[in-house]
Amino acid sequence: MIQEKRPKAENLNGGATFARSQRTYATGSRPDLRVPMREITLDDTQASDGSVRPNEPVRVYDTSGPWGDPEFHGDCRRGLPLTRENWVLERGDVEEYEGREPLPQDDGYLSKVLADRATRMEGEGRLDRFERGSRKILRAKPGHSLTQLHYARQGIITPEMEFVAIRENMKLQRRAEDLKMSPEAFRNELNHQHPGESFGAAIPEEITPEFVRSEVARGRAIIPANVNHLELEPMIIGRNFLVKINTNIGNSAVASSIDEEVEKMRWSCKWGGDTLMDLSTGKNIHQTREWILRNCPVPVGTVPIYQALEKVNGRPEDLTWEVFQDTLIEQAEQGVDYFTIHAGVLLRYVPLTAKRMTGIVSRGGSIMAKWCLAHHQENFLYDKWDEICEIMAAYDVSFSIGDGLRPGSIADANDEAQFAELKTQGELTERAWSYGVQVMNEGPGHVPMQMIKENMDKQLKWCHEAPFYTLGPLTTDVAPGYDHLTSAIGAAMIGWYGTAMLCYVTPKEHLGLPNRDDVREGVIAYKIAAHAADLAKGHPAAQFRDNALSKARFEFRWEDQFNLSLDPEKAREFHDETLPNEAAKTAHFCSMCGPSFCSMRITEDVRRYAESKGMSEEDALSEGMKEKSEQFNEGGGELYQQEPVS
Amino acid sequence: MIQEKRPKAENLNGGATFARSQRTYATGSRPDLRVPMREITLDDTQASDGSVRPNEPVRVYDTSGPWGDPEFHGDCRRGLPLTRENWVLERGDVEEYEGREPLPQDDGYLSKVLADRATRMEGEGRLDRFERGSRKILRAKPGHSLTQLHYARQGIITPEMEFVAIRENMKLQRRAEDLKMSPEAFRNELNHQHPGESFGAAIPEEITPEFVRSEVARGRAIIPANVNHLELEPMIIGRNFLVKINTNIGNSAVASSIDEEVEKMRWSCKWGGDTLMDLSTGKNIHQTREWILRNCPVPVGTVPIYQALEKVNGRPEDLTWEVFQDTLIEQAEQGVDYFTIHAGVLLRYVPLTAKRMTGIVSRGGSIMAKWCLAHHQENFLYDKWDEICEIMAAYDVSFSIGDGLRPGSIADANDEAQFAELKTQGELTERAWSYGVQVMNEGPGHVPMQMIKENMDKQLKWCHEAPFYTLGPLTTDVAPGYDHLTSAIGAAMIGWYGTAMLCYVTPKEHLGLPNRDDVREGVIAYKIAAHAADLAKGHPAAQFRDNALSKARFEFRWEDQFNLSLDPEKAREFHDETLPNEAAKTAHFCSMCGPSFCSMRITEDVRRYAESKGMSEEDALSEGMKEKSEQFNEGGGELYQQEPVS
Repeated sequence: MIQEKRPKAENLNGGATFARSQRTYATGSRPDLRVPMREITLDDTQASDGSVRPNEPVRVYDTSGPWGDPEFHGDCRRGLPLTRENWVLERGDVEEYEGREPLPQDDGYLSKVLADRATRMEGEGRLDRFERGSRKILRAKPGHSLTQLHYARQGIITPEMEFVAIRENMKLQRRAEDLKMSPEAFRNELNHQHPGESFGAAIPEEITPEFVRSEVARGRAIIPANVNHLELEPMIIGRNFLVKINTNIGNSAVASSIDEEVEKMRWSCKWGGDTLMDLSTGKNIHQTREWILRNCPVPVGTVPIYQALEKVNGRPEDLTWEVFQDTLIEQAEQGVDYFTIHAGVLLRYVPLTAKRMTGIVSRGGSIMAKWCLAHHQENFLYDKWDEICEIMAAYDVSFSIGDGLRPGSIADANDEAQFAELKTQGELTERAWSYGVQVMNEGPGHVPMQMIKENMDKQLKWCHEAPFYTLGPLTTDVAPGYDHLTSAIGAAMIGWYGTAMLCYVTPKEHLGLPNRDDVREGVIAYKIAAHAADLAKGHPAAQFRDNALSKARFEFRWEDQFNLSLDPEKAREFHDETLPNEAAKTAHFCSMCGPSFCSMRITEDVRRYAESKGMSEEDALSEGMKEKSEQFNEGGGELYQQEPVS
Repeated sequence: MIQEKRPKAENLNGGATFARSQRTYATGSRPDLRVPMREITLDDTQASDGSVRPNEPVRVYDTSGPWGDPEFHGDCRRGLPLTRENWVLERGDVEEYEGREPLPQDDGYLSKVLADRATRMEGEGRLDRFERGSRKILRAKPGHSLTQLHYARQGIITPEMEFVAIRENMKLQRRAEDLKMSPEAFRNELNHQHPGESFGAAIPEEITPEFVRSEVARGRAIIPANVNHLELEPMIIGRNFLVKINTNIGNSAVASSIDEEVEKMRWSCKWGGDTLMDLSTGKNIHQTREWILRNCPVPVGTVPIYQALEKVNGRPEDLTWEVFQDTLIEQAEQGVDYFTIHAGVLLRYVPLTAKRMTGIVSRGGSIMAKWCLAHHQENFLYDKWDEICEIMAAYDVSFSIGDGLRPGSIADANDEAQFAELKTQGELTERAWSYGVQVMNEGPGHVPMQMIKENMDKQLKWCHEAPFYTLGPLTTDVAPGYDHLTSAIGAAMIGWYGTAMLCYVTPKEHLGLPNRDDVREGVIAYKIAAHAADLAKGHPAAQFRDNALSKARFEFRWEDQFNLSLDPEKAREFHDETLPNEAAKTAHFCSMCGPSFCSMRITEDVRRYAESKGMSEEDALSEGMKEKSEQFNEGGGELYQQEPVS
């Protein structure tokens, strides 16, 4: 693995980068396998004898893609470079074809004339149709399989698998080096304080490509990677890896436009969103998705029934398998990496929701419930599961099996309808696996704390350890306006218990559509939940960042404290509100206690005293310390003028 | 118990009240025992047949005191009415005396001349010295005891105990009435879904005054209520009651003034702070505290060593028992309800912190550590514990035994130093109880999720079930700027496990001093954590509010959804960002799905269909449903125009 560095740059590229950070790449076994990381430069530790001790930079997982590389000068009209093109083509399992011609109906118009007229009327500032150029559509050759699950089962380690192995693994080495410790001593330091419960996570010392392969083969992890999303930087979702977060964007009938959605995508990736769901429901669904996919370095998920519903003018009872099938192919050809499909909402489960406090709150779930009741037929997504699997397998689209009957309130948590569907999700999981399709399962929702673990336990058991992907859960209903927070509590807990990916919730949940600030708040809340879960699981690549930040805090390295934060910009802004001038950022005090006194400074005295006198714990207990204490006082009781020693 | 209502008023009284809320009082066994509540008026449920079904108002716990009563026209120069005056005097255990004359040093000045000069120079807009008038200081008569713990042990139910019993209890009845259910059926509804773990909470069906007495007598709960804080509306802290939250305010050497602090106090009480700690460290500590106490309806806590340190010019080694003792009496006479005292920081524990990542981060802890090292003597707070207990007992000041060695980073969580001190806290608890003094114990700090429960388990065991009062804990160190959130995760969990009170953390933690917005964010984050914990514990007076809000949400009663929220103003503001006009607040759709489609509307259809057809779960499974389905389609597939049925 070779380290390659790019020059430092601050806040270039439309704000996609962070201060004192530079983009580095770890190169794998082939030159076109370059794993991006953000490297944060740290200040030196100032010792009291005037000497300085350098702090080596800290590298963190980076989801921002080329947009976070100051050397990248692309623009979204051309789309991102095709990172995976060689990997996919070299395997020889794909064929190129022309693909389905997009229809005006894909964007919500009856005819091309009406679509063009709408585009004209929307005027300037609007992005045009994305020009795909000469690019062809890819799919599996007849008789071939091309899913990551298929390759894993064959014992093949794909570049995608190697990519995620490097991406998940490197931080452990980084931190050991930083501390001048042996990896063994470092592991001991990390692990000696984890007497807590373990919920069955089995994260190894080192994430190897082979470990990635074995987890994918087992169905315990997925690498969502449609062969038509070649711009993707692969990532993995599974409970023996870092906990991931998903963000949702999407226009609706009320608000939003294509360029807003593309910008939200880049914004979400900047702050750390690991995957992105496009939940558009209004006009221009096809075009919006095309712009997003061509510019998105992370996996993109959708709920195809949303677009299918638009094609039948919003009438669920008019949905047909043909419309849905056509929509699946349309989206698979565009490169969507995972589909949420609510095939577990069975006819016989629907009446179970009538006695609920809040009925069915999943949009996809209620669409299918309405269809089932109107036709008195079994959910056609369930009946056509095999056909759906065949389509997914041809492009390596992963399933995110929807939880259409998830609870919408604390009162409805863990009820009969919810768990009936979960069992069916398990059945569908096994059937999808038989087609070599990768699968994760969606989960709730609104669940009070004491009922969260039951969700995880049942999902592991009934869904055979396929990755769990939950929405929060919200732990109370009483705080609209703060549901990023009510749900971050539940998300952190269920992440600890074993959920592999957490779907974010913004402060606007239940109230309105999120704007940029809401997306940022939601992403950071979920990065916190995911990281807290990684710590609790004892993930070896987690605590290094807490330690680096705490050490910076202790040594009054303010800039480092800001820059190691999940949101460096907010940390700096908050500090500056109280102590705005630049000198305060190098000050050895903080606004909480003022310049003449600070608890952290006294601790430094304690530490220096203990060290300089060679005082051990035993000494402290002995009578001999009395004498040392007097020497200390003679030497000057006022120690605050001295510089701290780390 | 008699209900007495006040006329409805919106946002009077300096913003201390909320829209569509009115103040009501439940009167107890004597006319001067009036427990305040906020009653939220709800809209009617609109049925599809044109009929309306009224929703009775919801009453919630109210911490805002007289400031939240539109009929109250006091101002902070006069202070609040003396709610408890008769209760305290009637018991006949107090004597009046002149009290200690405040010294210039109490406010950080060497002489009265310097203090007066400083006051003049600060100019207008500054509050003057609070005029206590003819009011005398109260303390226990010789040979008498007057603590709530003493009375409880004697079998006496004080008005304070009855007050908190009514305050904790009433919501259960409210909700049963609202639902036209018997209390038994309501209890069943609440409880049938709580298969989760129980962590030893034993919350009874009804909180009676006798139950309050027994919990106080056992030491499992405290009612912090200094006989000199007669303005107090009593509240209880114990794990078999609602989880409480504390907020911190206080000037420091860098910023803040008296009137800002008084305003922060009212602000904190408006949003739901149950107690308030004044952590001032700069000038005018005595005066700031006097203004706060005379205007504060909730218990006030302090860390007396902070003021003592100011009196010795910020040099910990110059602290003496005499200065500390004088400060305790000064503050007890003013009416402080609980003191944080770091008597568990023993000399032999200090060197245990030298090997930590972040040493000692508690300000009180590091002051005492420095004192111990400088003098090589045992912590004088520990040595003088009996004398301290005698002072506390004379005024009924409760102990909040400090955790001076709490961890300041994930790396230091649950270490030897921390748990050594916790054991000593347990020893000090028993000694305080022998003097009849009420006690709670402070806890961490920074603790990853999997290590939180160990804190609660050890505290319960070693501290004999005295209430636990924790700062968060923060579950990761990587998010300065969001530590209200990193810590709300830990706070919710430890509250579920049994912590009785949660000390809030604001977004500015580690970065700067909180302003009004930060206080609000911190309080709401902690109200969420406390409420999530109450739900998880199965508290009978918790879920009614979730249910009322979820029902409002389901029925598109937007105003009710806002007003039932912990922060009605933010909920309304967020909704209006997307759909600003007034009509949208009565609309039967929301901005997420737009006017023509909404999952909640489809659920209404499902429910109506199931109900109107008399369809049971069994019916759904039978062939006969096919026919019904056809009838339904003939009757018109488009059901969206109809009004929802609840």
